[in-house]
Amino acid sequence: MDFESFFKNELDGLHQEGRYRVFADLARHRGDFPKATRYTADGTQEVTVWCSNDYLGMGQSSIVTEAMKRAIDECGAGAGGTRNISGTNHYHVLLERELADLHGKESALLFTSGYVSNWATLGTLCSKIPGVIVFSDAGNHASMIEGIRHSKCERVIFKHNSVADLEAKLSAADPRAPKIIAFESVYSMDGDIAPIKEFCDLADKYGAMTYLDEVHAVGMYGPRGGGIAEREGLMHRLTVIEGTLGKAFGVMGGYITGSAALCDFIRSFASGFIFTTALPPALAAGALASIRHLKGSQVERFAHQERVRRLRSLLDQRGIPHMVNPSHIVPVMVGDAAKCKWISDLLLDNFGVYVQPINYPTVAKKTERLRITPTPLHSDADIDHLVGALHSLWSRCALARAVA
Amino acid sequence: MDFESFFKNELDGLHQEGRYRVFADLARHRGDFPKATRYTADGTQEVTVWCSNDYLGMGQSSIVTEAMKRAIDECGAGAGGTRNISGTNHYHVLLERELADLHGKESALLFTSGYVSNWATLGTLCSKIPGVIVFSDAGNHASMIEGIRHSKCERVIFKHNSVADLEAKLSAADPRAPKIIAFESVYSMDGDIAPIKEFCDLADKYGAMTYLDEVHAVGMYGPRGGGIAEREGLMHRLTVIEGTLGKAFGVMGGYITGSAALCDFIRSFASGFIFTTALPPALAAGALASIRHLKGSQVERFAHQERVRRLRSLLDQRGIPHMVNPSHIVPVMVGDAAKCKWISDLLLDNFGVYVQPINYPTVAKKTERLRITPTPLHSDADIDHLVGALHSLWSRCALARAVA
Repeated sequence: MDFESFFKNELDGLHQEGRYRVFADLARHRGDFPKATRYTADGTQEVTVWCSNDYLGMGQSSIVTEAMKRAIDECGAGAGGTRNISGTNHYHVLLERELADLHGKESALLFTSGYVSNWATLGTLCSKIPGVIVFSDAGNHASMIEGIRHSKCERVIFKHNSVADLEAKLSAADPRAPKIIAFESVYSMDGDIAPIKEFCDLADKYGAMTYLDEVHAVGMYGPRGGGIAEREGLMHRLTVIEGTLGKAFGVMGGYITGSAALCDFIRSFASGFIFTTALPPALAAGALASIRHLKGSQVERFAHQERVRRLRSLLDQRGIPHMVNPSHIVPVMVGDAAKCKWISDLLLDNFGVYVQPINYPTVAKKTERLRITPTPLHSDADIDHLVGALHSLWSRCALARAVA
Repeated sequence: MDFESFFKNELDGLHQEGRYRVFADLARHRGDFPKATRYTADGTQEVTVWCSNDYLGMGQSSIVTEAMKRAIDECGAGAGGTRNISGTNHYHVLLERELADLHGKESALLFTSGYVSNWATLGTLCSKIPGVIVFSDAGNHASMIEGIRHSKCERVIFKHNSVADLEAKLSAADPRAPKIIAFESVYSMDGDIAPIKEFCDLADKYGAMTYLDEVHAVGMYGPRGGGIAEREGLMHRLTVIEGTLGKAFGVMGGYITGSAALCDFIRSFASGFIFTTALPPALAAGALASIRHLKGSQVERFAHQERVRRLRSLLDQRGIPHMVNPSHIVPVMVGDAAKCKWISDLLLDNFGVYVQPINYPTVAKKTERLRITPTPLHSDADIDHLVGALHSLWSRCALARAVA
């Protein structure tokens, strides 16, 4: 087989469908977020980042960066091994205690990323619990889907956020089979929020375990940043709460929290946890500082929510169509892959506004969009400039306006 | 189902088999490696680490730590997004160029870990190439096995490092089927080295692609630290060379190198690459500094090899049985899980020597061992102390001696 031709043909297919990805090569500037320098073939350009998942700008906070630098001075660069073979650093231990406390659970377990935490935990639960059936929300993230798929267990997909469909599917399943309900709180692309309480009620009724991904909520919701389940007073009803250190906490890494036995079970059996180098001590120290700060401070959360409201209000004034949702994610709908890429290119080249186009397979075809994520560090002027740029493009490109 | 009881029962099983893992809680001290402080329930203890994969001590080098701190000052803590959505930092771009150059390839692609690079790359190649058959060495790492398993492609396991068995299996397969030969250079637990040239000859003969994992070799072998394939002048014959930034380079992360089309194909289709937050800029900057240094400096490699020779020579003098191999890994054989754990505990408690016991499933039953990894930073006194401690325990525990 001519492998090179095969790869090139597959890539040509992506180009033809208008969904070949070009990464923006950026240098973020500490202390000056959301500004960044973009490297291009022709030189550099100053841009404003409008699509980061560093939702609160904590990745730019000296609270986090100073903690990281101190840990580097104390401990060095990498962890030097897997968690079992010399790689457990005291910062990992402290961070796991902090995360367990954040979610009101007995234990926590760190992973190298949120992706790995979902993949490894669901993969292990679903492959090790005999006869388990997993009920998985149709909107679940790729990392959850891959973990479930990997386990080869029986899986039932229920309609996104649908209590009725989940109940129909639970009631149709073998009552003796162990069951897991796996879902997210805030969904990344639509910004909608799961009916967590109703899903927990169904879990009680049918004897199921619950697995909640809060990666787009931790740090941002709840009085201590514990996520949507904290805000709703529901943390104790979830078997597993999974989260990330790479979005609102501003660093990198993933985790689960749950009972001591559950975390110890995953720790002991998950290949993706066992056979990988541990997070560098500096990342654990930075995340620890970030979580501790956001446990006590409401300033970032209030400012974040205010910025989101302001952006939405200005978009409404100009008739720029955006999906209504109860979270901080502002999807500006375009509905066409090529047009979405084209608008994004114009925003970048003509206005210095960087918003990555979101196309299939990240979202369904005909729902292509610009996914805009305001942070507390976006100024009034930044918002005005963004909305002005969108207004100008909407006029030039004959895009549909929202009806006021 | 009572999930808690299920988890506890499974953990009880591990305890009974003597393979329940207890992590040593360590604080590494920058500038004083391999010394570390171990946290215990009763307080702290100063120990010497003898089982780290920070093989050259680069994780403690100011070349690496200062580069990381500078990048934190410039760019902040985390990358703030996936590679596609605002998370590509200029350090990622520079590091990928450096890695491609290190292995003499057109391109490189970064992953969050070596585990993910193997899992995602093999998983994508094996699931996307129609009708592919993968020929996988019986000794391959868990991350390679999981990637291959995940793809559900046809797989053929050949006897570890056996040219004859690989050829028998290649010749028995459908000549028209696309084929991948997947193997490692240095194997982690036995320290033996693959017949890379002979495997490449077979790949040519049968039209197969080759995938080589060099995680236990990059930085340490070859004139520029390109690994065993560089040392043997074989890099150009391999389709994919995979490596890690978390062992000899002292930081964290994984990568592949290969043709531009191959790397772009994986970049465009691998779920485990696409849907995960990028490495923090500081990790990329630290790895970049480490690789550049080790490309030009032989000091660390020569000192490393000299330390390994010295340790082996002293073990021989005392009749401590260790597996002979052509690499830097020194497996001291015990052959019993409980005894291995017990010796490791005594080394730690009575001698301040930290070597994690390696038991099933990491190695086969009855081949339990202490896996010792000398670094350039272990002094003569450290080596004398280690060998003295082993000698004392071998005498007390009536363990078999090697015959001189």
